[in-house]
Amino acid sequence: MSEFFHVDGEVVPANEATVSVRDRGFMYGDAGFETVRVYGGEPFEWEQHASRLAHTCETLGFGDAVPPADDLRERVVETVVANNLTEAYTRLSVTRGVQPGKLTPADEVEPTVVVVVSGLPRGGVDGERVWDGPATVQTVETRRVPAMSIPAGLKTHNYLNGILGRLELDGSDEALFLSVDDFVTEGATSNLFFVRDGTLCTPSTELPLLPGVTRDVVLTLADDMPVETGRYESTVFEDADEVFLTNSTWELRPVETLDEWSFDIGPVTRRLQRRFDEYVEAQCYRV
Amino acid sequence: MSEFFHVDGEVVPANEATVSVRDRGFMYGDAGFETVRVYGGEPFEWEQHASRLAHTCETLGFGDAVPPADDLRERVVETVVANNLTEAYTRLSVTRGVQPGKLTPADEVEPTVVVVVSGLPRGGVDGERVWDGPATVQTVETRRVPAMSIPAGLKTHNYLNGILGRLELDGSDEALFLSVDDFVTEGATSNLFFVRDGTLCTPSTELPLLPGVTRDVVLTLADDMPVETGRYESTVFEDADEVFLTNSTWELRPVETLDEWSFDIGPVTRRLQRRFDEYVEAQCYRV
Repeated sequence: MSEFFHVDGEVVPANEATVSVRDRGFMYGDAGFETVRVYGGEPFEWEQHASRLAHTCETLGFGDAVPPADDLRERVVETVVANNLTEAYTRLSVTRGVQPGKLTPADEVEPTVVVVVSGLPRGGVDGERVWDGPATVQTVETRRVPAMSIPAGLKTHNYLNGILGRLELDGSDEALFLSVDDFVTEGATSNLFFVRDGTLCTPSTELPLLPGVTRDVVLTLADDMPVETGRYESTVFEDADEVFLTNSTWELRPVETLDEWSFDIGPVTRRLQRRFDEYVEAQCYRV
Repeated sequence: MSEFFHVDGEVVPANEATVSVRDRGFMYGDAGFETVRVYGGEPFEWEQHASRLAHTCETLGFGDAVPPADDLRERVVETVVANNLTEAYTRLSVTRGVQPGKLTPADEVEPTVVVVVSGLPRGGVDGERVWDGPATVQTVETRRVPAMSIPAGLKTHNYLNGILGRLELDGSDEALFLSVDDFVTEGATSNLFFVRDGTLCTPSTELPLLPGVTRDVVLTLADDMPVETGRYESTVFEDADEVFLTNSTWELRPVETLDEWSFDIGPVTRRLQRRFDEYVEAQCYRV
């Protein structure tokens, strides 16, 4: 547990890090956030996170109120430093703040900016993974919220859909969601990849899913192999040779079982894990 | 603006009423709430609100952590009294609290209980309405979240779907949502009724909507007239003679325009408003 968080521009002791009960981030989940991994003191893929956070808050109508990316980055770094960490998981939130009135947002926004951090050792090229072995995944009954209800690609404090999916799990590590029209989308907090006939496959962003920063990195690192983004039914895993999940915390986490199917950790997963680790080294430990 | 709120069992000055930035109600909107109207110092339809709140928290998997209804009622009353109010709007929230770990809820729940209050004059049989005249309503592009993504009937801190609808409004008072399969459901914070050929109609709870406490009261008060709950397309208002909205704040609020259609405040609306006011009198001002 960390000792210091960051609230509205100040480093504060974690137990005094609070928001008003009238903050719209609390009342309505009216907030964007990013989970940013810090390696060697450097926020990893910062530009991508800052840009997605800006997109989320713009879509919610308070893009103008988001502090500049450099300012936000500084808050993330300050929080990590205040806790004497260099390897960390951080959660950066920007809410619409406290406003008069009720549900309809007011034009004038005084945002609330929060950074929460916890130490997270790096796996790295030779290190240990943060997860205890390959993941078990279960397709859940709860369906991903369709884009016509809440645009896909927003990362917000409205996370009940993911929580309801996780609550269905019978001991598995991750819930896999189908869209309302029965296509594979993503996990509660991860994107999903699989390998079929030598092709790396992942659900298309035409489906309601959050295209993760780690997903994008993996797609870039796979630029010399056959890659396909598509619409897949839940039986597609019958023909899969390898399956893995990605997010900022898990990086690339192999899947060992998905519903009734089992998988070995295969060569494509291992190759991409290695490339990912090398990429992190190159980005964050260049000294 | 009220001076005192209620947080975790204590009346506290409003500007000190906060929750931890690690409260799941803030991080994920992982909380149930109720908007309870207080008339003459009495929480109106308390049993209905307490029962729906229990249902919400049970569906979210922390029903056991919700304090008993009497205890919650006492907190609502204490907050109203602390502000020297008798006519008020209150918002009672129960969150899953702070937990170790990330998205997957832990079994052990120490809930956070918050009451926010603001003074709200009663319209009453002879008083003035809290709203400035009949409502203007606009059907929005944003669709209600389907029940297969988040069960309908939960009142939670995940309110972005409603906010996105309200943001579409071009000066109207309320956003009307269709379901993903094109049926009329409800407003962002209200239920909708209309009168057609002398029958009082409202969308069925088979559709994804929150059956409001005021909606239920109105259906009870209409027990001597023809009533229908059903699935209606958005063109149904062409044949409507009267339209009104209900919620705890607006009670019964007539609709003057809905998209291209205009309506007068008709006899059924007036009769039900009168009955509602009398019912409030009987329930809360019996002394």
